[in-house]
Amino acid sequence: MNPNKTAKPAFTSDYMEGAHPRILQRLAETNLIKTQGYGLDPYSDSAREKIRAACQCPDAQIHFLIGGTQANATVIDALLDSYQGVLSSDQGHINVHEAGAIELGGHKVLTLPHRDGKIDPDVLQQWLDDFEGDGNHDHMVFPGMVYISHPTEYGTLYSLAELTRISGICRTHGLPLYLDGARLAYGLASSVNDVSLPDIARLCDAFYIGGTKCGALFGEAVVIPDPDRIPHFFTIVKQHGALLAKGRITGIQFDTLFTDDLYFSIGQTAIDAAERIRSWLREHGYTFLIDAPTNQILIILDNEQLQKLGEAVEYSFWEKVDEDHTAIRFATSWATTKEDVDRLLQTLDQL
Amino acid sequence: MNPNKTAKPAFTSDYMEGAHPRILQRLAETNLIKTQGYGLDPYSDSAREKIRAACQCPDAQIHFLIGGTQANATVIDALLDSYQGVLSSDQGHINVHEAGAIELGGHKVLTLPHRDGKIDPDVLQQWLDDFEGDGNHDHMVFPGMVYISHPTEYGTLYSLAELTRISGICRTHGLPLYLDGARLAYGLASSVNDVSLPDIARLCDAFYIGGTKCGALFGEAVVIPDPDRIPHFFTIVKQHGALLAKGRITGIQFDTLFTDDLYFSIGQTAIDAAERIRSWLREHGYTFLIDAPTNQILIILDNEQLQKLGEAVEYSFWEKVDEDHTAIRFATSWATTKEDVDRLLQTLDQL
Amino acid sequence: MNPNKTAKPAFTSDYMEGAHPRILQRLAETNLIKTQGYGLDPYSDSAREKIRAACQCPDAQIHFLIGGTQANATVIDALLDSYQGVLSSDQGHINVHEAGAIELGGHKVLTLPHRDGKIDPDVLQQWLDDFEGDGNHDHMVFPGMVYISHPTEYGTLYSLAELTRISGICRTHGLPLYLDGARLAYGLASSVNDVSLPDIARLCDAFYIGGTKCGALFGEAVVIPDPDRIPHFFTIVKQHGALLAKGRITGIQFDTLFTDDLYFSIGQTAIDAAERIRSWLREHGYTFLIDAPTNQILIILDNEQLQKLGEAVEYSFWEKVDEDHTAIRFATSWATTKEDVDRLLQTLDQL
Amino acid sequence: MNPNKTAKPAFTSDYMEGAHPRILQRLAETNLIKTQGYGLDPYSDSAREKIRAACQCPDAQIHFLIGGTQANATVIDALLDSYQGVLSSDQGHINVHEAGAIELGGHKVLTLPHRDGKIDPDVLQQWLDDFEGDGNHDHMVFPGMVYISHPTEYGTLYSLAELTRISGICRTHGLPLYLDGARLAYGLASSVNDVSLPDIARLCDAFYIGGTKCGALFGEAVVIPDPDRIPHFFTIVKQHGALLAKGRITGIQFDTLFTDDLYFSIGQTAIDAAERIRSWLREHGYTFLIDAPTNQILIILDNEQLQKLGEAVEYSFWEKVDEDHTAIRFATSWATTKEDVDRLLQTLDQL
Repeated sequence: MNPNKTAKPAFTSDYMEGAHPRILQRLAETNLIKTQGYGLDPYSDSAREKIRAACQCPDAQIHFLIGGTQANATVIDALLDSYQGVLSSDQGHINVHEAGAIELGGHKVLTLPHRDGKIDPDVLQQWLDDFEGDGNHDHMVFPGMVYISHPTEYGTLYSLAELTRISGICRTHGLPLYLDGARLAYGLASSVNDVSLPDIARLCDAFYIGGTKCGALFGEAVVIPDPDRIPHFFTIVKQHGALLAKGRITGIQFDTLFTDDLYFSIGQTAIDAAERIRSWLREHGYTFLIDAPTNQILIILDNEQLQKLGEAVEYSFWEKVDEDHTAIRFATSWATTKEDVDRLLQTLDQL
Repeated sequence: MNPNKTAKPAFTSDYMEGAHPRILQRLAETNLIKTQGYGLDPYSDSAREKIRAACQCPDAQIHFLIGGTQANATVIDALLDSYQGVLSSDQGHINVHEAGAIELGGHKVLTLPHRDGKIDPDVLQQWLDDFEGDGNHDHMVFPGMVYISHPTEYGTLYSLAELTRISGICRTHGLPLYLDGARLAYGLASSVNDVSLPDIARLCDAFYIGGTKCGALFGEAVVIPDPDRIPHFFTIVKQHGALLAKGRITGIQFDTLFTDDLYFSIGQTAIDAAERIRSWLREHGYTFLIDAPTNQILIILDNEQLQKLGEAVEYSFWEKVDEDHTAIRFATSWATTKEDVDRLLQTLDQL
Repeated sequence: MNPNKTAKPAFTSDYMEGAHPRILQRLAETNLIKTQGYGLDPYSDSAREKIRAACQCPDAQIHFLIGGTQANATVIDALLDSYQGVLSSDQGHINVHEAGAIELGGHKVLTLPHRDGKIDPDVLQQWLDDFEGDGNHDHMVFPGMVYISHPTEYGTLYSLAELTRISGICRTHGLPLYLDGARLAYGLASSVNDVSLPDIARLCDAFYIGGTKCGALFGEAVVIPDPDRIPHFFTIVKQHGALLAKGRITGIQFDTLFTDDLYFSIGQTAIDAAERIRSWLREHGYTFLIDAPTNQILIILDNEQLQKLGEAVEYSFWEKVDEDHTAIRFATSWATTKEDVDRLLQTLDQL
Repeated sequence: MNPNKTAKPAFTSDYMEGAHPRILQRLAETNLIKTQGYGLDPYSDSAREKIRAACQCPDAQIHFLIGGTQANATVIDALLDSYQGVLSSDQGHINVHEAGAIELGGHKVLTLPHRDGKIDPDVLQQWLDDFEGDGNHDHMVFPGMVYISHPTEYGTLYSLAELTRISGICRTHGLPLYLDGARLAYGLASSVNDVSLPDIARLCDAFYIGGTKCGALFGEAVVIPDPDRIPHFFTIVKQHGALLAKGRITGIQFDTLFTDDLYFSIGQTAIDAAERIRSWLREHGYTFLIDAPTNQILIILDNEQLQKLGEAVEYSFWEKVDEDHTAIRFATSWATTKEDVDRLLQTLDQL
């Protein structure tokens, strides 16, 4: 019996279920085998090898952390010197929705105005030129790295050209580039995406491949392509309370996700569902807050629509647009079924 | 096929396997049901209710965190004012094996010499008397709370009389008392234990019920008996990167552990196995580093014994005692079988 | 011999000289008298009494800190809980020119767009309404206090009506209001100012009376009108490296500044000089970046003017306005003489 | 009129007066000369040159900070990576009397048992051998530097042989060595001292020459012999609230202290006075807590003596030795006169 059967169609987020069934199966199969803790087990080693292969970075340091905020706080604290801050879009997750985790580590988030949720390379270039230009900046927080998310918080994607340019600017200025891939599976599967895992590994100094929102119970794989980039990262992870005693649990999950391209097929499932919903909404004249090509769909409703929709469907509040309008989000995921989408569209059709 | 069958008997730690099978089963059964994230789901609510009942503290705030270091860092940071430190035994986990997680939050660990891994109430009393006595202490870190572990890092236990006295001293001095229960199941099941969950809830201001080492894949249940003790703890958890998106995963695990007394029977399994090993070692004249009544067994070996044992059995290094002697640890757990113990004792017998 | 006689007129800042001569005289007179350290001396006590009288807050806690960044970081860290940030104008000193001192203490600066360097009460109200409105804010940094500067970084002033409104909003929302008075003497002396020290003490929960820029060698008097507001502030000051061993040095300086209204006459000197310069600039058609009534004068020059001025006068760079224009600052102070202004105007006249 | 004339002889500390008269004179002479702020003035430059010459380290970075706690917190935070702590004697000032300033910066103080207030090179060597020896230390705070004070908090001194050995151990292990010279003038002047400023500059990676306790109003000169050791230290100083706007004030003070060997003659005055007092106490059978050769004299009194002494002389409480005995301190300084010592000895003689 599935209690969701009779419930409203629910598209609130991409972390409403447990894990992809293959992951649960592997956890069950391996359950009583004894291994060392803290990620020093053969499952974690195997997962690391598969990720290195997928990223074409054979020497990369790879650590499995538990969640996105934690991964961001740990990596950023590890990459910055004490007097440095992290450049981010003003809508970056680290700036808005992580409860001050970066500042807890002693660092300022230096914000750039976003364009469709992204950092505009021109804006980044100009900011850095200004910082290094006239006047004395010794009383200011120094930029120490750049944070981007891909897909962004709005579901948008960097093109390979954009990512290449941002990476070039960062390298010219000696700034590590860090990519938050909480929803990376959904970016990689998007029909407009032209950025591959090897591209990311080549252009970024650190990034994480999101598991929590992409089919795992939890877990994010932090990849540091140059293994000498962050000495003693293991201890930094421990210091941040981010080291899982039974590290095998994340190891097994990522080993499964990177077996038989599961990570990629998971992304495809969500994208296909999102595309179907988006087409329907477009055909029916809905207004989009932003034109995003991944698994998040942001539309603007007027108050009347909002109330009717709220009675029929579960979605998430995004932001107040004006007194009469509100933006909401539907998110699809690896777990979204054809039946889920059918029910959503039927329900919307009857509004 | 179980690869451990042919391997050496392994008693390295109490986190060498996955989770108790009932937990995996519940995760599988609930896997595709959709719920809200961040612990706002019915499984987490149910687990909270069961823990409140077991602790006889009907109003307690309960939050499910992921690991012990994280739980300690988050609770301690939440309870202390900026100018305060946390009193701990010098062997306390927060002082030795958490990579500076407390200091990362800006707080000093103020150490008291341990007695069998425990804080001696007399020593605590004297320290506080001294601090409040002669001289100016305004240039020193103020004590802001007391941290104890139960069982301790050495596997020892506070008696109810000791815990009552420490609690009384804390309350007299306005210091919250926080108990780290990473291995609480193994303390509760010990034959010498006279401290119950309701005792802990009555005598402490915060504590956590350990899951990671006691049958869960991971997870610790932080209990704050007075719900007004720490406002906005949810946000503090988020800020510390300790908020699980799919909070249901910890909810389901603790709901299972507190159904049909599973948490208590798990403890019993480990204690029974440890008692069997301890008896055998005692009969065979082994020297114990400490006389501890829970699931950790600390013995001292000379170099020759150490080498032979290392070839036959997996244990964990504890500490160098002197040039010729080393202390090692065997740990049992919920997953230790009669066959595991048989094989260990047979192996030891042949050394 | 004064080397400045032959140098260019210098209006770079208000901290180019030592201290008001009466301060040096008092330091010399008291030099060999022995006192206790850390502000527990009779001079500091006397200064505290005089400031309490001037502020009409007889119970206030008063601590003498050394500089503005330090005072801000210490007070803000003392007032905030771990999960809270400080609301500030985006141009607030703490947000731009303190090298991340607030973030070092673990707190985020939550920014509001400035209006003439000030926080607009309507904008503050709206921000707080939004924060408490729709959506879940438990993943965000909570507002914990409001920071304003008076005069602002642009030399502008809050009217008593504005300050009263901001204070009211803060109290409604339970947020302490903190006023940075680095240049308070120059605000109090301005002809348009209608905010008195007792007003500030009544409407704010903490503030500092600036000494460094207002006639002292260094030093800021932090005033906390409600003495129970921040327990153990002395220790927090020490923890922040802000406790002067020879606390008498700041005590003597503030005792002198608050004897015979010296603090107020110092302000008047600077304001009179600034008014003379401003009138001349206005008469000669210069463009002001902002219309500020205190001791800072911000004008916009084109590139040609900028170069000629730079050869003749010392000023400070403010900001690039566009490719062809730059804003610069002249600052007057307690030490600005009629002769200094004469020379400046003569020089400008010959450009 | 000097109110101290009629007061009790006062030997409470070495920061009971203002500054050496030559310093006040220089401050008065230069008072109205205009200079840039933040240490970018000719007086600071001149002081830096004189200190470089005295230390025979021509390229050293030199920054003038305000107090010892601040200097320690800033330098230590600048030298450590996030996962590292600072090794110190358990009686080190940073461990006991700085209110947690090091922990506020996110770092643990790793303590070694002191021997006469000093770190024993053998103990340091053993600690590092142990840390790098058996067992897994990845869960522990890594040692990142060594902190010593010279003179120590007990007034004792490292011999050149000891300092050389500690420096060698540090360099072998890649740990910067930092020396806290709050009372360095009194160490350099001691008859048993064989450590010179060039020795310190050669053997340490950072140190500060104390001004506050050695004749200045306030101020400590942080010397970093290798100028590339700490990039952007200026900004780190600012971030710690340790940057003086009127940097010239410390510049002028240190320029004066390093003119005509004033820093050394100041030390001699205090040492001569301390030696006279020590000889008298020794002759009269007083018990010393520790045999220290600098300006601090630690003696143990029984309760009766303590009470009588307290009525006649101002001293500082050091520590309770046992129920019947207390250790107290007399401190001499640059300002201690022959008359002061005469009065003390006369008073003691009449007890």
